[in-house]
Amino acid sequence: MSIRIGIAGYGNIGRGVETVIPQNPDTRLSAVFTRRDPQKVTLRTSGVPVYPLNAAESMTKAIDVMILCGGSAKDLPEQGPRFASLFNTVDSFDTHAVIPEYFSKINAAAVKTTAVIAAGWDPGLFSAMRLMSEVFLPEGVSHTFWGRGVSQGHSDALRRIPGVRDAVQYTVPKQEAVDAARYGEANLSIQEKHLRECYVVAEEGANLRKIEEEIKTMPHYFAGYDTIVHFVSEVNRTDMPHAGLALRAGKSGGHRHLMEMSLNMESNPEFTAGILIAYARAAARLAREGSYGAKTFFDIPLSYLSPKDGAVLRKELL
Amino acid sequence: MSIRIGIAGYGNIGRGVETVIPQNPDTRLSAVFTRRDPQKVTLRTSGVPVYPLNAAESMTKAIDVMILCGGSAKDLPEQGPRFASLFNTVDSFDTHAVIPEYFSKINAAAVKTTAVIAAGWDPGLFSAMRLMSEVFLPEGVSHTFWGRGVSQGHSDALRRIPGVRDAVQYTVPKQEAVDAARYGEANLSIQEKHLRECYVVAEEGANLRKIEEEIKTMPHYFAGYDTIVHFVSEVNRTDMPHAGLALRAGKSGGHRHLMEMSLNMESNPEFTAGILIAYARAAARLAREGSYGAKTFFDIPLSYLSPKDGAVLRKELL
Repeated sequence: MSIRIGIAGYGNIGRGVETVIPQNPDTRLSAVFTRRDPQKVTLRTSGVPVYPLNAAESMTKAIDVMILCGGSAKDLPEQGPRFASLFNTVDSFDTHAVIPEYFSKINAAAVKTTAVIAAGWDPGLFSAMRLMSEVFLPEGVSHTFWGRGVSQGHSDALRRIPGVRDAVQYTVPKQEAVDAARYGEANLSIQEKHLRECYVVAEEGANLRKIEEEIKTMPHYFAGYDTIVHFVSEVNRTDMPHAGLALRAGKSGGHRHLMEMSLNMESNPEFTAGILIAYARAAARLAREGSYGAKTFFDIPLSYLSPKDGAVLRKELL
Repeated sequence: MSIRIGIAGYGNIGRGVETVIPQNPDTRLSAVFTRRDPQKVTLRTSGVPVYPLNAAESMTKAIDVMILCGGSAKDLPEQGPRFASLFNTVDSFDTHAVIPEYFSKINAAAVKTTAVIAAGWDPGLFSAMRLMSEVFLPEGVSHTFWGRGVSQGHSDALRRIPGVRDAVQYTVPKQEAVDAARYGEANLSIQEKHLRECYVVAEEGANLRKIEEEIKTMPHYFAGYDTIVHFVSEVNRTDMPHAGLALRAGKSGGHRHLMEMSLNMESNPEFTAGILIAYARAAARLAREGSYGAKTFFDIPLSYLSPKDGAVLRKELL
């Protein structure tokens, strides 16, 4: 019997989950829930109903795992605990600084459900890499690089500047910082590790020099970074490529070691969706076993992610 | 109270474990067990007793986890089940083809103990990467490359050739095969992926052309490979560097994705030892919880590898 998946929130991530479900034949899409008018939402999958988000409460019997595809800033802090009290859930909550608080709230709500949080590539896959590399190389230095890829937060910040009609911001790792990290350099700030490349469409007659000045001095977002501003006639946001690199340079007995994990994604939301659906499989199994509460990448054995049984995994993949 | 570690077998891996124990302050070395005459074994660590291997049976109360550092070909098939019936154990058994059989034997022996098998970098860390990349990218192609590093089995095979006084063999990934793998090429045999570089010290007066011919045509080991033979006056085996690359090229919704994990180790045994000691920590905890039997990388949540508690891990590493 396949795992019945609900998608809560039909944005980029929600559409990504819809795309990868057919690659996972032990799962099927049962319903999509949206804040928009369901009449106006057309799925790519035929025969799947679309409901208003508030209708989910009455459908706990029809969904095995609800994948929460809302944003981390506003949607998940409210939706996460609410859905976790009703459904097994998986999300890719990614506001690193407030993960402990979010975990506590979800854990309190998930009394008779299993709720996997922060199951994306960072936090998530790269967190697993950071943990493994730290325990295998206790003496060492870890670094994470993000990019080349779009940062939504920084793109939003650009679009709030007067005179800016549209904009996207690419975060780009600096090669010299990657080299220093591989060599075990500990003191690399996030500013030293990345440069910020902005593609800006200005309104007609806007003062370009003033916009560029405002970008480069914007506190928290761009001040302190090497920032490059390109004024362009339009920005391309059809694809959402991203990339990342997590590494640790360590030592033992006078020997040096280097562990690296790297990702190159042509579609950030679809790759994230691939992780979400694997953890949905794990959540369904954990719930069947009565292992309730909030869980992360750190708490779930890898075998729970696969539809194959243990003996097959040992034979084929170990 | 620190985890009391026993080392069974004081070869390269055993010395590696001894080297990394001080990097893991929640563990301590309690005893070393050896097949050699204990009087003739001098540890680098002062104050730690050395016993004959057969004395281990009487010391089950003094050791929390026994790390089995013997070879996979002859030592572990016999020692693994015997020790797992008496102690919590960890090993880096690496004969891929017979892992299922080895797992069954260990599992049958580990009735009241926890026995982690195949906890090295491959099998082990790279197995984890293969599993994660397969579940996150179900549509795709995986490849593993080994090297540049010494293959003990191939070096042994060289040394059995008449006229060869000493030899080491380096396995080297071919760059064009790595590039093809990144592009998603499925059909790459192990021969196409690696070349074999041999450093051979010949006996005086030996027929070098005959030795080279014999190497290049040796079935299973060298026939079918690009093999390079260097005749040298001596071989260097003080360090044991190794490297590896596990990758998967996958697709979703018309987009391509690439996941990679790479390792560069100046000391293969010490890096492996870092993994063994982390899984010794996990074995001790699993045993305290009554979770007995054989376990692999696939069965143990990552949080069990770290001395930090869950809340700290979520705050620092997620």
